[in-house]
Amino acid sequence: MSVAKQIVPFTIDDGRIRVVIESITPSVDDGKFAVKRIVGDRLEVEADVFADGHDVVACQLLWRRAGQTEWQQQTMRALGNDRWSADFVVDEIGRWEYTVRGWVDPFLSWQHDFARRLDPEDVRIAALTGAQLIDAAASRAGKGADAKELNSWSRELAKAGKDKQLGVDEIKRIGMDEAHSAVARRHPDLSLAWTHERIFPLLVERERARFSSWYEFFPRSASDDPARHGTFKDCEGWLPYIKRMGFDVVYFPPIHPVGRSRRKGKNNTLDPGPDDVGSPWAIGAAEGGHDAILNELGTLKDFKQLLKKANDCGIEIALDIAFQCAPDHPWVKEHPDWFRKRADGSIQYAENPPKKYQDIYPFDFETSDWRGLWAALAGVFEYWAAQGVRIFRVDNPHTKAYPFWEWAIAHVRKTYPDAIFLSEAFTRPRVMHRLAKVGFSQSYTYYTWRNTKWELTQYFTELSQGPGRDYFRPNVWPNTPDILPAALQQGQRSVFMARHVMAATLAANYGMYGPAYELLEHKPLREGGEEYLDSEKFERKVWDRSRADSLAEFIGVINAARHAHPALQNDHSLRFMPVDNDALIAYAKHDPERSDIIVCVVNIDPHHVHSGWVELDLEALGIEADKPYQMHDLITDARFLWTGPRNFVQLDPNVCPAHVMHLRAKVTRENDFDYFQ
Amino acid sequence: MSVAKQIVPFTIDDGRIRVVIESITPSVDDGKFAVKRIVGDRLEVEADVFADGHDVVACQLLWRRAGQTEWQQQTMRALGNDRWSADFVVDEIGRWEYTVRGWVDPFLSWQHDFARRLDPEDVRIAALTGAQLIDAAASRAGKGADAKELNSWSRELAKAGKDKQLGVDEIKRIGMDEAHSAVARRHPDLSLAWTHERIFPLLVERERARFSSWYEFFPRSASDDPARHGTFKDCEGWLPYIKRMGFDVVYFPPIHPVGRSRRKGKNNTLDPGPDDVGSPWAIGAAEGGHDAILNELGTLKDFKQLLKKANDCGIEIALDIAFQCAPDHPWVKEHPDWFRKRADGSIQYAENPPKKYQDIYPFDFETSDWRGLWAALAGVFEYWAAQGVRIFRVDNPHTKAYPFWEWAIAHVRKTYPDAIFLSEAFTRPRVMHRLAKVGFSQSYTYYTWRNTKWELTQYFTELSQGPGRDYFRPNVWPNTPDILPAALQQGQRSVFMARHVMAATLAANYGMYGPAYELLEHKPLREGGEEYLDSEKFERKVWDRSRADSLAEFIGVINAARHAHPALQNDHSLRFMPVDNDALIAYAKHDPERSDIIVCVVNIDPHHVHSGWVELDLEALGIEADKPYQMHDLITDARFLWTGPRNFVQLDPNVCPAHVMHLRAKVTRENDFDYFQ
Repeated sequence: MSVAKQIVPFTIDDGRIRVVIESITPSVDDGKFAVKRIVGDRLEVEADVFADGHDVVACQLLWRRAGQTEWQQQTMRALGNDRWSADFVVDEIGRWEYTVRGWVDPFLSWQHDFARRLDPEDVRIAALTGAQLIDAAASRAGKGADAKELNSWSRELAKAGKDKQLGVDEIKRIGMDEAHSAVARRHPDLSLAWTHERIFPLLVERERARFSSWYEFFPRSASDDPARHGTFKDCEGWLPYIKRMGFDVVYFPPIHPVGRSRRKGKNNTLDPGPDDVGSPWAIGAAEGGHDAILNELGTLKDFKQLLKKANDCGIEIALDIAFQCAPDHPWVKEHPDWFRKRADGSIQYAENPPKKYQDIYPFDFETSDWRGLWAALAGVFEYWAAQGVRIFRVDNPHTKAYPFWEWAIAHVRKTYPDAIFLSEAFTRPRVMHRLAKVGFSQSYTYYTWRNTKWELTQYFTELSQGPGRDYFRPNVWPNTPDILPAALQQGQRSVFMARHVMAATLAANYGMYGPAYELLEHKPLREGGEEYLDSEKFERKVWDRSRADSLAEFIGVINAARHAHPALQNDHSLRFMPVDNDALIAYAKHDPERSDIIVCVVNIDPHHVHSGWVELDLEALGIEADKPYQMHDLITDARFLWTGPRNFVQLDPNVCPAHVMHLRAKVTRENDFDYFQ
Repeated sequence: MSVAKQIVPFTIDDGRIRVVIESITPSVDDGKFAVKRIVGDRLEVEADVFADGHDVVACQLLWRRAGQTEWQQQTMRALGNDRWSADFVVDEIGRWEYTVRGWVDPFLSWQHDFARRLDPEDVRIAALTGAQLIDAAASRAGKGADAKELNSWSRELAKAGKDKQLGVDEIKRIGMDEAHSAVARRHPDLSLAWTHERIFPLLVERERARFSSWYEFFPRSASDDPARHGTFKDCEGWLPYIKRMGFDVVYFPPIHPVGRSRRKGKNNTLDPGPDDVGSPWAIGAAEGGHDAILNELGTLKDFKQLLKKANDCGIEIALDIAFQCAPDHPWVKEHPDWFRKRADGSIQYAENPPKKYQDIYPFDFETSDWRGLWAALAGVFEYWAAQGVRIFRVDNPHTKAYPFWEWAIAHVRKTYPDAIFLSEAFTRPRVMHRLAKVGFSQSYTYYTWRNTKWELTQYFTELSQGPGRDYFRPNVWPNTPDILPAALQQGQRSVFMARHVMAATLAANYGMYGPAYELLEHKPLREGGEEYLDSEKFERKVWDRSRADSLAEFIGVINAARHAHPALQNDHSLRFMPVDNDALIAYAKHDPERSDIIVCVVNIDPHHVHSGWVELDLEALGIEADKPYQMHDLITDARFLWTGPRNFVQLDPNVCPAHVMHLRAKVTRENDFDYFQ
C-alpha cells in the first residue's frame, strides 16, 4: 500500500492525548473575566470530560492563588452524562485561578474491564497486564510506603495470573482490592494528561462585597442648626442613629471643595446666591481637587477621626468618586490636555445636546496622555485608601473608558485587596454588565423603577439566576438623591415600607438615600419628573429625625433580620413562589446549607388589604410535606402554623404591607433531623 | 498633588481604544470550532458593540476565505440594545473566517450632537469642529472624487460657522447634508478601531451536506440469483429503481476483502460454513486491506464504472470507512505497533468485557507511531477520493481519537474540499457533538428510538434550535443494518410509512437501510433485541422488489416532495404546532424567504383513526389571518381549504398515516402580495 507513505504535515505535538475537556463552569466570557466569590465560599466547578472509546477517564480540578506556579488539586466526581464536578474553599481575598486537567486512565480502564471478565484465560492474561500497570504506579510513587505497597500488590497479582490452580474469583479479588486500588489511584499516569488551555480567573472579595446595607447622607446637612454648615464632627453624632437602623455602610456624596465658577443654585438654577453651597459633584476649586476636603466639613484629621468612630460602631464610610472637574479644579490648569477642546479653544463642558452642564468638565479618555490621566485617577482611590477608606461608590462609571476601569480597579486592589467598588451606572444592560466584568464589586440596578409583581419577578430572577450571577452583584436602592421614583411621590407610608422591605430582602446589598427616605420625603421638583423638590444636591438641609412618622424603627427591624439571618445575606438562593393574587409577591431565600430559610410576602398595593394562597416548594426547601411548620414573622413577632405547600396570607397595607418570616421546621436533610433555631 | 506622579505599570498598548465588542454569534465554543454553512447561504452575524458615554459607535463585519490576508467588510446595522447585525453570502466551498471591528466614530458622534443643538453660538462653534472632522475624512479619502467632495463640504461648513448672519437652521442643513454625509461615512476614522481578538472559523460545504437522501444497501445482495454473489455490475441494474425512489446517495457497507481468520457465520455465529461470506466490517485479508476491493464484487474498474453510471442518474456512491482490521489485514503484519498487545504477546482484539469481537482488531491511538497511523488512515480517504468517491460514512468514529479526526478531516478537505463525512456515532450526546465540532459534516441521531410526540418534539426542537444547530447536522434513519427498532418489529405498514415520512420531513438529511425497509423486513433475531433475524451483515440476501406491499412507490412520492420543496431542504426552520391529540404530531418548515411552506401532520398510532385541531402560527408563516388558504397534500394530491389558525385534520393509518401539505396562500411579506406555486 502506498497510502501510509505519503508525507503529511502535522501541527500537533502529541497526537496520543485523547481526553476532551469542554464547558468549564463557572466562567465569564470563556475565562476572559473573573468569576466573583466571597472569602469562605465554596466554589463548585463543573466540566465535560470524556474521551473516545470505552476507556475510563479521570480528571482533577486545579486551583491556586494568582501568581503561584504550583496547582492544588482535587479529584472530580462524575455527575453522569460526561459531566464532572469538584469544589474548593477560597480562604483568602485576592485573585485566584482554576482550570481542569483530565486524562485517559490506564489503571482505571484496566480495572473496569477486569471486574467484568468471565473467561478464566482472559482473567489470567489481564492479571499480568494489571501487574504491569501497578508496577508503573509504584515507580511513579517513588520510594515511600505507597511504592512498597504497590510493588507487593503487583507481585501478588502477577503470581496469581500465572497460577493455573487459582480460581477466577480469587484472582479478581486480588486485582480489585480496594485498599490497594486507592493507593494506585493516588499515583495516576499523567503522561498523556491534558490541562485545559484556559486558566479561569476568580476574584475573592470580603464579605461586605456580597452583603451590605448602605445609608447615603450629605455630611453638610448633619448640623441641627439651619445656620451652620454640617461637619464631620456633626456626622459623629449621627452614628448611633444610623447604627440603630442597622446600616453598616455610610456613603457620603463628594466631600471635596465645590467649584465656584458657574456654581448651581437651589433647585439646579443657574443664578446662585452668595450662600448657595452648590453641587458637591462639581469637584475642585482653587484650594484643591479630588484629594482635598471642603473646608466647611473639617480637616483630614476630623475625617480620619470620623472613620475611626464609625469603625468602632461597625460602620464603614464609603466615598463617592466622581471623575469630573469643576472649571476651577487645579487639574484644569495643570493638565489642559486631559480635557477636550471646542473649536473656539475653550474647554468642552459636559453636555448631552441640547442639555448643557457648564459647571462640569469631563475627562477626555482619548487624550494622548492617557497614561498620566489613568495614573492620576487611580491615585485618587489610592489617596483615600491610604486614609483608611475601603469602599468607593463610583459616580457614572459608564462615561469613562472600560479599559481604564479594568486597569485601575486591578491596580488599586494590588495594594488594597479589600477595596470594594460600587458602580453607579443606571444605563443599558450590556454597559452595566461590562462594568461588572471589568471589576466593579457591586452595581446599581433597575430596582428603583421595577414596581409590578411581573417586573420584580422577571428582574430578580434574571439577577439571581441569569448569566450575570457569577460577576454582577446587585445593590438595590428604592431612592437616590437623583431619583425620587413615581411610586414614592404620593408619599404613602405603606409604599415606603414595601419598597424598603423588598430592597432589603430581594438583594443582599441594598441602600437608601436618607434621611429623605425614612422621613418620607416625596415632593418632586416637577410633575412627571424624578428630581426631588428642593433637592439636597443643591442646598443644605436640616432633618427632624424625631418625627412620629419616621420609618427609622421599622428600617431597624428589617436590618436586624438581615443581620440575624444568613438566608438574607446572599442573592443566589432567591426563588419566587406562586400566589394567586397579583398584588402579593412571595419569595424564599436560604443559606448554602439550607439551615436558615426566610419567606417574604409583600402586598404591593398601597391601598387595599389583599389575601391569597402562597405555594411553597417544600421539597426544594427540604421540608417534610406532611408535618406542620412554624412561620415566625420577624416584623410583628407573630407566629403562624403552616402545613403543606399551600397556605393563606393576608396583608393590610395600613398596618404592615409585608411578612418577613423565618421558617422553623423539621428539615429532611440526609440523616440530619433537627429542629433548628 | 502627588497622586499623578506615581509610577504605574501599564500593560495596555493604547488605552484610548474605548469600544467594546462582545458575544459574536454564531460561534461554536467561542470560535474554537467552525460554524457550518452551505455554499450560497447568507451568514447572519451579530455582536454587542458599545462604548462608554454618549459617543456614537460604528462597526463592520469582516470576512475572508481562510488563508487570505485582506478582509471584506460590511457595515453592521443597529438592532437596538447595543446589538448589531450584518450578513454576507458564502459563494465558495471551503474554509472562511469572520470577525467584527468596531470604533467610536468622531464624525457620527459630532453629527448626532449637531442635529440636537439649539444655541446659535454652540451651533456655530460645532460647525467649525465638524469642518475639521470632514477635512480629516477628506485626507483619509485620498485623491479621488470623495476627497474633493468632502473638502468642498468642509469649506462650506466652516464658512457657515463663521457667518454670523446665517440662521441656525441653514448651518444645520449644511452640516447634516445626507449625500455628503454618506461620502464621509465611507472614510471613517479607524485610528482607534478595535478588531475582536478572535477570528471565527466557518466551514462552507456543498449542498448535499445539508440536504441528502441516503439508501444503504449491500452490493453483495444485488444479484437476483441466490447462487451468485452480487457485483458492482449488478448494482448498476439497481440504479433506476433507487432513482425512482428518489434517493441521491447510495451508501455501501465496506467493499474490501473480508477477513478469513475468525470469520463470523450467519446470525453472528462463531462457526461459519465454507460458503459464509462473513461481515464486511471485518476488513482485510491476504489480498488487501482498506484500499482493496473484495474479488467477488468486481474490480476497481467495475467500481469506477458504477460511480459513473450512478453519477449519470444524479446519484452519489458513499463508502463506509471502518477503521479496524480483521486479523489477516496486511497492516497487522506490517505495523504490529499500531495495535495494543495483551500480556501474552497476542494482539488485543476488540472487546467490551465480557463481550469479545475476536474477528476485529482496533487501532491503538496511543501508539508512539501515531503519525504513521494517522497518515495511513487519512490515506484511505484520499485513496477513495482519488477514485471519485466524495461521501464517506464513518463507522464508529467515537472509538477513534478526536484529535485524529480533527486533523484527518481537515487534511482530506485540503485536497477534496467537496468531501462529506457522516459520523455513525450512536452514543452519548457530548461525544456526538464533539465529533460534529471536529469536522464531521453530518451525524446519526437518536431518531431511530424517538417514538412519542413528546420525545420527537423535544428532540427535533433541540436539533433545529439548540446550541448544536450551527455545527451538528442531523442525518436521521428509521432503521440500519444494526438496528431494527422495537417500533418496526410488529411489521405494520402504517408504522413503516409514518416513521419514513417523519424521517424525510423532520430532517433535511435522512436515510434508510433498504431493501429491508421498503420490503417491511421486521423479524428480530431475539425478542427484546434490535438485531435483524438472518441479518444481511452476515449473509447474502435476494430481495423480491416486485412485492405488492413494497413501500418503494410511497417512498418515491415523499422523496419527490423533498426535491420539489426547498422548505424540506433545511433543518433550522422546523417549528412544531399544537394539536389537541397526542397521537397526532404536526410541524411546519419553510425556505429562508418563506416563499415555500410545508405543513406535516402524522398519526403515530398505527391502529386507530385520529383527528384533531391543528394550530398554525399564521403570523410567523406570514399568512393573512382572515383569508382562506389551500393545503395541497403532496401524498394523496387532495386539496383542503383552510381558514384561520385552527383547522381540523383526520388521519386513518390504514389508508395513509400522514399529510405532507404544501401551503398555498396570499402571503403578507412587505409590499409583496403574490400567490405562489
